[in-house]
Amino acid sequence: MLFDTKRLVVVLVETSNPLNIGAAARAMSNFGFLQLRVVNPYDVAFREARSAAGGAPVLAKAEEYKSVAEAVADRTLVVGTTAVRHRELQHPLRRLERGAKLIRKELSSGKVALLFGTEKTGLSNDDLSYCHWLMSIPTREQHISMNLGQAVAICLYELIRDSKAPATKTTKTKAASAGEVERISKVLLESLHLSGYVNPISVTSTEERVRRMVRRLNLSSEDAELWLGMYRQMLWKMRNCN
Amino acid sequence: MLFDTKRLVVVLVETSNPLNIGAAARAMSNFGFLQLRVVNPYDVAFREARSAAGGAPVLAKAEEYKSVAEAVADRTLVVGTTAVRHRELQHPLRRLERGAKLIRKELSSGKVALLFGTEKTGLSNDDLSYCHWLMSIPTREQHISMNLGQAVAICLYELIRDSKAPATKTTKTKAASAGEVERISKVLLESLHLSGYVNPISVTSTEERVRRMVRRLNLSSEDAELWLGMYRQMLWKMRNCN
Repeated sequence: MLFDTKRLVVVLVETSNPLNIGAAARAMSNFGFLQLRVVNPYDVAFREARSAAGGAPVLAKAEEYKSVAEAVADRTLVVGTTAVRHRELQHPLRRLERGAKLIRKELSSGKVALLFGTEKTGLSNDDLSYCHWLMSIPTREQHISMNLGQAVAICLYELIRDSKAPATKTTKTKAASAGEVERISKVLLESLHLSGYVNPISVTSTEERVRRMVRRLNLSSEDAELWLGMYRQMLWKMRNCN
Repeated sequence: MLFDTKRLVVVLVETSNPLNIGAAARAMSNFGFLQLRVVNPYDVAFREARSAAGGAPVLAKAEEYKSVAEAVADRTLVVGTTAVRHRELQHPLRRLERGAKLIRKELSSGKVALLFGTEKTGLSNDDLSYCHWLMSIPTREQHISMNLGQAVAICLYELIRDSKAPATKTTKTKAASAGEVERISKVLLESLHLSGYVNPISVTSTEERVRRMVRRLNLSSEDAELWLGMYRQMLWKMRNCN
């Protein structure tokens, strides 16, 4: 990441459900944005959220404000989130993918507030008057209203997502070596031979075919060993059955 | 989107909190993935979730299975989600950004299951044995465990996100015309003049400066009208005050 996550505050305006405050705080912690500001939360909700687990440290140091104006006073960019697509507003409305890009840019030197409104009605027109522009998550038209905690999580994820991130470390599965493949092929072939599978006239082509088939399995070195063990056991059985 | 969202099922394995089932269903509905399968949900939880609002239609037609094997039997790709980064597993583990790309590719012709485990322990080793590979959301190392509903929402968002999406329709704010800007500049200049602001020696340069300043405001046509009205009123006052 090329920005300091400390430069962003999430502002929850008049949230009424403690579970949503808790969920927002948890997602913030998951993605490394640790500064939460709440504006006039339903009192009981805020106290309940604080006492619940999950995003504990984020909630413990959450700051409480009496107005949106105060909550965003020190910010250089204020972005409101909305589900509504066609409000008759002066504000530019950006899809999350584009909006997040602009926010990341601002975070390299400025300070950003990301506003989320109430569960029922979102941000009021008064709240919106403090916003430079608005951002919406690209939900389908038939169901645009998202759960608050999920909306916060998705916005923050988009901010930290990295399309060029190196692949997550895979438990390095070492590919089987040609020698291992060959040993398996040998045992398998002898087994097929003993079991009467190989047509003597076409011995060579069968061998090649089997070898190619084993190679195509793309076995890991570890798995190769297991397969070899199993085939050897079967071979031993066949060698000793008459 | 170049794939059919019907080709993906979300599979919740042994979920115990009805709120999480509900939240998952709601996010599915938000992003247009309508097929939910639940494997041995905690019974009460599933009944409660069904009776709650939010993702209602998705929950109503959710299918219940007794085992992961049955729930994924008709799928061509089974992807498990995990918070854990270093399980001693054979499975490749991909970050969401990359994993989603592969899933989208598969969805153009195949059928995909996206598995989410229990709230407490995630997918079991047995569940994982049905998965082709695993995917994780890039949370920070200090707090990797996400809320289930939020994890589902983020995975589905990543599937439908479109970095090349056209900007959301902005309530088209028509920019003020040069004429409108000029009218404002004129009124403003006369006001400045009347108020005694203009230094007679530098009249021209002040005019230019004001005109440039007004242009830099990038007013919308609508706002331009409002400003013009305000300036005119002030000008009227100044014209009539002595």
